[in-house]
Amino acid sequence: MIIDCHGHYTTAPDAHTKWREEQLASGKAGTPAPLYPSISDDEIRETLEASQLRLIRERGTDLTLFSPRASAMAHHLGDPAISRVWAEQCNDLIRRVVDLYPDLYLGCCQLPQFPGSPISESIPELRRAIEDLGFVGVIFNLDPSGGYWTSPPLTDESWFPLYEALVELDVPAMIHPSSSANPAFHGTGDHYLNADTTAFMQLLRGDLFARFPTLRFLIPHGGGAVPYHWGLYRGLADMLDQPAIDGHLMHNVFFDTCVYHQRGIDLLCDIIPTKNILFGSEMVGAVRGIDPETGHYFDDTRRYIDAADLTGEAREAIYSGNVRTVFPRVDAHLAKRGM
Amino acid sequence: MIIDCHGHYTTAPDAHTKWREEQLASGKAGTPAPLYPSISDDEIRETLEASQLRLIRERGTDLTLFSPRASAMAHHLGDPAISRVWAEQCNDLIRRVVDLYPDLYLGCCQLPQFPGSPISESIPELRRAIEDLGFVGVIFNLDPSGGYWTSPPLTDESWFPLYEALVELDVPAMIHPSSSANPAFHGTGDHYLNADTTAFMQLLRGDLFARFPTLRFLIPHGGGAVPYHWGLYRGLADMLDQPAIDGHLMHNVFFDTCVYHQRGIDLLCDIIPTKNILFGSEMVGAVRGIDPETGHYFDDTRRYIDAADLTGEAREAIYSGNVRTVFPRVDAHLAKRGM
Repeated sequence: MIIDCHGHYTTAPDAHTKWREEQLASGKAGTPAPLYPSISDDEIRETLEASQLRLIRERGTDLTLFSPRASAMAHHLGDPAISRVWAEQCNDLIRRVVDLYPDLYLGCCQLPQFPGSPISESIPELRRAIEDLGFVGVIFNLDPSGGYWTSPPLTDESWFPLYEALVELDVPAMIHPSSSANPAFHGTGDHYLNADTTAFMQLLRGDLFARFPTLRFLIPHGGGAVPYHWGLYRGLADMLDQPAIDGHLMHNVFFDTCVYHQRGIDLLCDIIPTKNILFGSEMVGAVRGIDPETGHYFDDTRRYIDAADLTGEAREAIYSGNVRTVFPRVDAHLAKRGM
Repeated sequence: MIIDCHGHYTTAPDAHTKWREEQLASGKAGTPAPLYPSISDDEIRETLEASQLRLIRERGTDLTLFSPRASAMAHHLGDPAISRVWAEQCNDLIRRVVDLYPDLYLGCCQLPQFPGSPISESIPELRRAIEDLGFVGVIFNLDPSGGYWTSPPLTDESWFPLYEALVELDVPAMIHPSSSANPAFHGTGDHYLNADTTAFMQLLRGDLFARFPTLRFLIPHGGGAVPYHWGLYRGLADMLDQPAIDGHLMHNVFFDTCVYHQRGIDLLCDIIPTKNILFGSEMVGAVRGIDPETGHYFDDTRRYIDAADLTGEAREAIYSGNVRTVFPRVDAHLAKRGM
C-alpha cells in the first residue's frame, strides 16, 4: 500500500481561484466579498481527473493526504478575517474532493493565519477541520509574512496554543510555508526549502519536545538542506550543548520524500532513520515536467523509492507504515476499511 | 597541492573584537570611535598557531584563502561609515596574517556594505584590497540586513557596479552572508545555508551571465540545499522557461566542499560537475568538534574528498586546479613561486 502524505489541490477550479481574487479586491475596497461561487461536482472531478488522478493511477498511489494549494494560502494578504474565510473555503473544497473520492483522498487543512495575529485564532478552524470535516492533518506556516520572517521561532511559547490543540487532537502538523511576497525569494525554488531548513534548526536550538513529547511535525521537501548537511547538524548540536539529534528530535520530526532525483532520495534514505521518512510527492506541484535524463516525471518519487537501496520492510514503512504511525487518524480510517 | 578556498579569521585577536564593540558603542553614543588598538605580530601568531595553523599542518593544506570572520561582518550594525572603517580594519588584519605567513595564506576581503546603501560605496574598499593589499578574492553579503532579506535579488541592476568592478579586476566573489539579526534564524545552522540556496535560485531565475559572461561566483557550504535538490532545479529551469542549468549557470557558479559528512560530499561530487567544485573547509568555523562516529573533526573535509569516489585527476582539480582557474590571482601568485 502506498500513501502519499503530501498532495495539494494545485489544480483547484478556476471559480475558486477567481473568487479569492475578488475577495482580496473587495477587502482592499472595503466592500463585502462576493458570495462564494457554486462549483459543481463535475467541475471538481474535471480538475482532478486529467492531472492528479491520472498520475495517481499511473503511479499506483493508493491514498493521498490532500491539502489546499500551499502557495495560495498567502497568509500575508488581506486581513485576519479575510484569511479566516479563505481558509474555510479552501478546507471545504478539500472536503468535497474527499467526499467525491473517499478511497483516494483524506484531507489536511490550511489555517487562517495572519502575520502578527495570535495563533489561537487559528484553533477554531483546526478543530472544525479535524472534528467536523474529518480531516487527518494540518499544514501550518512558520512564516505567515511571506518571506519577511517576522514570526518568532517555532519553540516560542506564542505557538503553544497550536501545539496544545494538536496534542489534544493527536494530529501531526506539516510545517509548510506559502508563496513569497519578498522578491528575494522564489516560492518552490528556495523559500520552501529555506523554511524546511530553518524549521529543523529552530527545533534543534530549543527543547520543544520535552514540553510536548507527543507533538509530531512533518518537514516537507525532504527536510530542505538538512539531510545533505547532517554532519553540520550533528556537530552543531554538540557545539550548542544540545542533546544528540536522534533522541532530541527524531521521535517527533519526520521528513517526506519530495526530492526530485534518485541520488537525493538515496542520500535521504541513507542518512535519515527509516522510521522518520514518509512517502510524499507534492504532485502536482513545483515541477511538472519530465526529466530528460530519465524520461520520467521529476516528481514521480515512487520510482526513486523503488530504486533506492532499501529492504522490503523499510520500503513498506516509508510507503505506508510510518504514515499510519504519525497520522493516527489515517490508521483509524484504514482500519475501518479493513486495511 | 591542496588549496582551501574558504577560511575565515574566526580566532581574531580579542583586542580586535573588543575594538569592534567599542566602535559600535561609540557609534550609538554619537562619540568618535577609540583608536584601533596596537596588536603585535606575536598576538596574531598566537591566535593562529594553536588553531588554524595546527589544523592546516595536521591536514596537509598548502594554502588557504583567508577572509575576515563572516559572522562578525554584521553589516546591519552601525551605519555606513562604521561599516566602512570596520571593513578596512578587518582587511588590514588579514593582510597582516598574509604578511606573517605568505606561503600559507592569501587574502580575501570583506566589503563595507550596509542595508540600503548602494553597493557602489563598497567598490573603493574592494579596489584597495585587491590592488593595494594584494588580495585575491572577496566575500560579499547578499543580505546585509542580517536575515530580513531587504535587498533585491543578485540579478538586480543595483548590484551591477560590484559586478563591473569584479569583472575588471578579474576577481571571483564568494556570496557569503553574515550573522542573523533575526531571531528566526541561526547563523551557521540555517541562515548561511538558506542564503546559499537563495543565491543559486536568484541566479537561476535571471540571466546575469549573459550580461557578465566572465563574472564568477562561489556559493559556499556545498551550495546550501542545491545539490540535494538538483532534480528540482533542473525541473524548475524547465518550468520557468530558463535554459538548462549547465549552460546557463555552470560556467560562472562554483560550490565549495564545506559539507561535514562523507555522504554529503559523495552527493556533491556525484551531482555537481567536477570543474565546479572547489576544496574548502571553513575551518575553524561553524563546527569545531570531533564526530563521534568517525573520531575525526567534522570540518576535516579533506578526509571526505580523499574517500570520495573520484579519479585522481578530479581530486586534483577539486584540491587546486579549479581554484587556480576561478581565482586567476591565486594562479599568478603560485606561478610566481614556481608552483
